[in-house]
Amino acid sequence: MDRTSMPELARRIFASQPFTQLLGAELIKASESGVTMELPLRRELQQQHGFAHGGVISYLADNSLTFAGGMALNDDALTSEFKINYARPAKGARLRVQAEAVSVSGKQAICQCRIWSVDDDRETLCAIALGTIVRVPGSPGQS
Amino acid sequence: MDRTSMPELARRIFASQPFTQLLGAELIKASESGVTMELPLRRELQQQHGFAHGGVISYLADNSLTFAGGMALNDDALTSEFKINYARPAKGARLRVQAEAVSVSGKQAICQCRIWSVDDDRETLCAIALGTIVRVPGSPGQS
Amino acid sequence: MDRTSMPELARRIFASQPFTQLLGAELIKASESGVTMELPLRRELQQQHGFAHGGVISYLADNSLTFAGGMALNDDALTSEFKINYARPAKGARLRVQAEAVSVSGKQAICQCRIWSVDDDRETLCAIALGTIVRVPGSPGQS
Amino acid sequence: MDRTSMPELARRIFASQPFTQLLGAELIKASESGVTMELPLRRELQQQHGFAHGGVISYLADNSLTFAGGMALNDDALTSEFKINYARPAKGARLRVQAEAVSVSGKQAICQCRIWSVDDDRETLCAIALGTIVRVPGSPGQS
Repeated sequence: MDRTSMPELARRIFASQPFTQLLGAELIKASESGVTMELPLRRELQQQHGFAHGGVISYLADNSLTFAGGMALNDDALTSEFKINYARPAKGARLRVQAEAVSVSGKQAICQCRIWSVDDDRETLCAIALGTIVRVPGSPGQS
Repeated sequence: MDRTSMPELARRIFASQPFTQLLGAELIKASESGVTMELPLRRELQQQHGFAHGGVISYLADNSLTFAGGMALNDDALTSEFKINYARPAKGARLRVQAEAVSVSGKQAICQCRIWSVDDDRETLCAIALGTIVRVPGSPGQS
Repeated sequence: MDRTSMPELARRIFASQPFTQLLGAELIKASESGVTMELPLRRELQQQHGFAHGGVISYLADNSLTFAGGMALNDDALTSEFKINYARPAKGARLRVQAEAVSVSGKQAICQCRIWSVDDDRETLCAIALGTIVRVPGSPGQS
Repeated sequence: MDRTSMPELARRIFASQPFTQLLGAELIKASESGVTMELPLRRELQQQHGFAHGGVISYLADNSLTFAGGMALNDDALTSEFKINYARPAKGARLRVQAEAVSVSGKQAICQCRIWSVDDDRETLCAIALGTIVRVPGSPGQS
């Protein structure tokens, strides 16, 4: 895969994810050095106490890790596994996640991300995740 | 908290989660020995290849672990952290998760779950998760 | 690899691990359905409070997951990643770990294990782990 | 606990861990901003292929996360759980780990570490870990 076209491919894949559309996430940046996504919070994304549901936060972890791995592997990719630590309940206007590859081999990338809640200009760390992203066997980019 | 009322409390909390309503998850069983949830799959829950999005599956892990921990701790609870391994892409009529506490101390429960895709009567294991669920400080059930 | 020779291969690999010899671990069982290892506790394996050091327990997790994955993959294997939850401090005559594959694909196995401290006939659960074991590329068993 | 005495306390605890002595690990630095440990490699720490055993690496993760959490919590601490990703086999003169707290609340710290093999002046990333460290209930520092 031509590296110059990866950000454009990332944007196309992101836009073609129905679940991402349902949640309303936005791909802010996608480059070889990492990805940034944001998600405006609304009532539908909450748990019973008014905070963002843990599943919303784990979606951001899962999706950002996958994209960071795909950018690093320069290919279509999927998340094999990840672990997430919730630092504190997430409340605010939006969530922001930044993900990056920490180690890349031929077939997989170890990626990490941090997730913040953002209000005005104040960022509060909500979660940290670490996972393994693998090249999708048989994806076009491999040939 | 009177143990007999925990399943009812679990049902009330589950029903009061806006994100759970958005996704359409169903609480099938909640008892001290574990919880079962199901989620009918529809296009809005997919990623770009037509499988259930990893974030949908991680939502089921997060939520089922929390409820299994809450039932075991006999109290309101939240997920402190978890790790999920995706075994294979999830496709089918619905997802089913079964979660249970493996070890319970005063303040926390270590819980695990398995997630299957279900078609007709055929279940396919899609993911496994393991995490820490903690009693919510100051929750009513503690008094 | 002829499946009948895997337990013998497992025994040979286990015996050839210098670190396993340093700690004094024993391979009790190795079959396609799982592995059991034991480790007699002695002062050298403790942390500052007289319990087994977390690193001793994580060694048992790492090694048992690797062997369970190798038996399931029918090949030489290594642990790509794992997560461990410590349930309670480990003290007693010995530690016992049982590991098994939960899901196996062509290239990897998702494995889990439980670790107990054992005194007389009383077992106490000390830790639970979940991880990914991958076939070693180019290992003899693959040909 | 007087913060100025924490590095000294860390040194004393480290020196009093029999398993740390058995392995030969060294505490290079311990401050509020993080800890560094090193471990000279020798044959006894290897697995069957001549690399450092995964259990040796997971010991470094476990121990460095605990100490980083203890320094951040300003108290005696223990590792509740962690997850480790092995990036590549570890070979060389020594291993080095750097750990730090990413998020600290009253009772726990989320900590991460990276482990390198070091040969001459060349560092190679071998593993990354992320975990939860909790204040030890009833430890002197809490009063």
